Amino acid sequence: MTTQGYAALTLETLPSRLGEVAAARARLGEPAAWRAREVGDGNLNLVFIVEGPEGAVVVKQALPYVRLVGESWPLPLSRSFFEHEALVRQAARDPGAAPEVFHFDREQALIVMEFLDRHVILRRAMIEGRRIAGLGRRLGLFCARTLFRGSDLSMLAADRKADLALFAGNAALCDITENLVFSDPYRDAPMNRHTPGLDALAARLRGDMAMKRVAQHMKWAFATQAETLLHGDLHTGSVMVSDDDIRVIDPEFATYGPMGFDVGMLVANFLMAFCAQPGHASDPGARDAYADWLLEETAAIWSAFVGEFTRLWRTERAGMLYEARLFEAQGCGLGAEQARLERLAAIWRDALGFCGVEMHRRILGLAHNADFETIADEAARAACEARALEIGRVLALSRDAAPDMAAALETAREIAGRDLL
Amino acid sequence: MTTQGYAALTLETLPSRLGEVAAARARLGEPAAWRAREVGDGNLNLVFIVEGPEGAVVVKQALPYVRLVGESWPLPLSRSFFEHEALVRQAARDPGAAPEVFHFDREQALIVMEFLDRHVILRRAMIEGRRIAGLGRRLGLFCARTLFRGSDLSMLAADRKADLALFAGNAALCDITENLVFSDPYRDAPMNRHTPGLDALAARLRGDMAMKRVAQHMKWAFATQAETLLHGDLHTGSVMVSDDDIRVIDPEFATYGPMGFDVGMLVANFLMAFCAQPGHASDPGARDAYADWLLEETAAIWSAFVGEFTRLWRTERAGMLYEARLFEAQGCGLGAEQARLERLAAIWRDALGFCGVEMHRRILGLAHNADFETIADEAARAACEARALEIGRVLALSRDAAPDMAAALETAREIAGRDLL
Repeated sequence: MTTQGYAALTLETLPSRLGEVAAARARLGEPAAWRAREVGDGNLNLVFIVEGPEGAVVVKQALPYVRLVGESWPLPLSRSFFEHEALVRQAARDPGAAPEVFHFDREQALIVMEFLDRHVILRRAMIEGRRIAGLGRRLGLFCARTLFRGSDLSMLAADRKADLALFAGNAALCDITENLVFSDPYRDAPMNRHTPGLDALAARLRGDMAMKRVAQHMKWAFATQAETLLHGDLHTGSVMVSDDDIRVIDPEFATYGPMGFDVGMLVANFLMAFCAQPGHASDPGARDAYADWLLEETAAIWSAFVGEFTRLWRTERAGMLYEARLFEAQGCGLGAEQARLERLAAIWRDALGFCGVEMHRRILGLAHNADFETIADEAARAACEARALEIGRVLALSRDAAPDMAAALETAREIAGRDLL
Repeated sequence: MTTQGYAALTLETLPSRLGEVAAARARLGEPAAWRAREVGDGNLNLVFIVEGPEGAVVVKQALPYVRLVGESWPLPLSRSFFEHEALVRQAARDPGAAPEVFHFDREQALIVMEFLDRHVILRRAMIEGRRIAGLGRRLGLFCARTLFRGSDLSMLAADRKADLALFAGNAALCDITENLVFSDPYRDAPMNRHTPGLDALAARLRGDMAMKRVAQHMKWAFATQAETLLHGDLHTGSVMVSDDDIRVIDPEFATYGPMGFDVGMLVANFLMAFCAQPGHASDPGARDAYADWLLEETAAIWSAFVGEFTRLWRTERAGMLYEARLFEAQGCGLGAEQARLERLAAIWRDALGFCGVEMHRRILGLAHNADFETIADEAARAACEARALEIGRVLALSRDAAPDMAAALETAREIAGRDLL
């Protein structure tokens, strides 16, 4: 990877450098009057909000290393290219779901995009106990539309193969997922950490051969099942919400992978928000109703996904897989419906596995969730996290005889009522 | 695809054009004394045998169209590039299995390689009833070594992703497989043909929703399960044998796909040779012992595959999947063994599906097998083919509760004893 010509933006250089970009001037007005602030609280990149007399934009620029760690952990600038490519595809496949892109500069690894001024990060809203109308349904629709329309169910086979080849270049970001999600949590890796009180549970999971087999099976699936273009990092920190709008951001981990990955990661993060609620309650039980709502919205993710996937299967199945000329056109429409149910069952089975692994890595691995991290009382935090670890384990191991979403949530609710420490 | 600078070889131009290639001169001696003949009996390419005072070579050149059909069916010259890339990898992963390559010219889509003068095509040997010592075992070893060593079980993840991206360029050859193998046989496609007498069976398979679901499931797996670099066309016409040597040729369909694909296609072609034996018998029963031998060698493919895959799993598992530091190094060696059995079961399940589809497409689709085509008596041929169709159907549909190889072969033997027309 060359970084020749690349220079990280600063608050000082931003107006002069972006002032040359017509798309930025068109949104913001005169560069002399711009005000910029750096707001990046993520792990990897620079993020600026730039406000001018006529409007505001977000400027996201990749750094040639992991921001959280520093230059000792290099990371290719090309992730910005892949993020932009993914944003373009998402905008086409689910219009309105991703932020609008105004400008992309590949050499500077820089995207100028819509500033969502009324929005907050969904994870923050869930910590605050805020309800968002239609949340699970909107995210389920996003998954169904992007995952279906990015697959051989919809695309021309040669186009999908070319796109697969393109995104194979995002290997460094996949490497992060492959190691930090699927492997490190299940061994004593140097960068792991966990809340005091979880030592015994961590050790038990790291000695649980059945769980490790499932985790490695899911890693195999992530690395080899190139079914569709994934968002690749679809947690509640990658969703922004307002009272009447829901957006999905930050697809820099985009890669071809199994449909169940985005779905499972999203469900996992809803379930972790659910498990964290007792830690946010001012009085015991104060968050019970909100926790119930979170489970309802988790169910809504999957029911919306199933509904929209079904609609697209019946109306947009134009790719080379399960062609209508083999089924409906031969009076075998029932076969196409059976095949749809088989595919949905396979996606759900994968999602259960990915869900469990995601719940483990957010508690035992490097990258933790604010849902738990904001619980100041360590004992209370450990109690919440212990339940999430167990829910993850039980759901991941249930794959072979997969329960439906209702049964999975019933199990989560039951485990959430236990004291595991 | 550009064909600028490309020119198909002729018997007249070959000595002057290849005479400039040092590697060819070194093998053959003085170009003035070369004798060349065109021997291509395949569907796609030009193949020459060139003999000189000091030795002989094979020259294989792609044509910019399908030879069998003509210029109306264009096909990229780049398939020669992918064949060469695959030959290089196979030579590294299973030394001695592929023909040695002496020279590759990308612009001319031309490979100069070892002439296997003592060898014949395996399919021909099976039609003649000739036994080859260690046949199934050698091919099982080839599958295990190339499929294991081309996967994330062995390779560096970033290397495998780069290789996946490279071979994604072989989309036109994949398109042939995707359509001619998985879809066309199950509908009234214009290029299909079948032996008179099979109309009713063909119609029944084309109306068999369960079989079509499996076929499309296998197409999904072929197109999306990018587990390893496949040979991609591993039938008995892609194997050359002598009394003491077995080689695998013609990997121009090489692509990343599921491990079970090569295995299943190979098993299917052994079973078709088995089904064809009564049609080659001079007297009833004259080929019974040879047919038994074919089933024994079919079993040997899988047992050698399992043995070698197991050995490689235990000694060469250096990739990112099922890392020893998660299993053996933590006292969880049993977990790694369970995972190995799970992987082998998944490969076998896939192989059964691919096997069934391959048996159908060779009888109902465009490309037929000499095993059956050389049976002059149409009624006898149809009887043999009908049994193969049924074996393929039963094996493909058995995937969900997959029988072991012994039970699969017992079923094949039982069906081969029936009169289905």
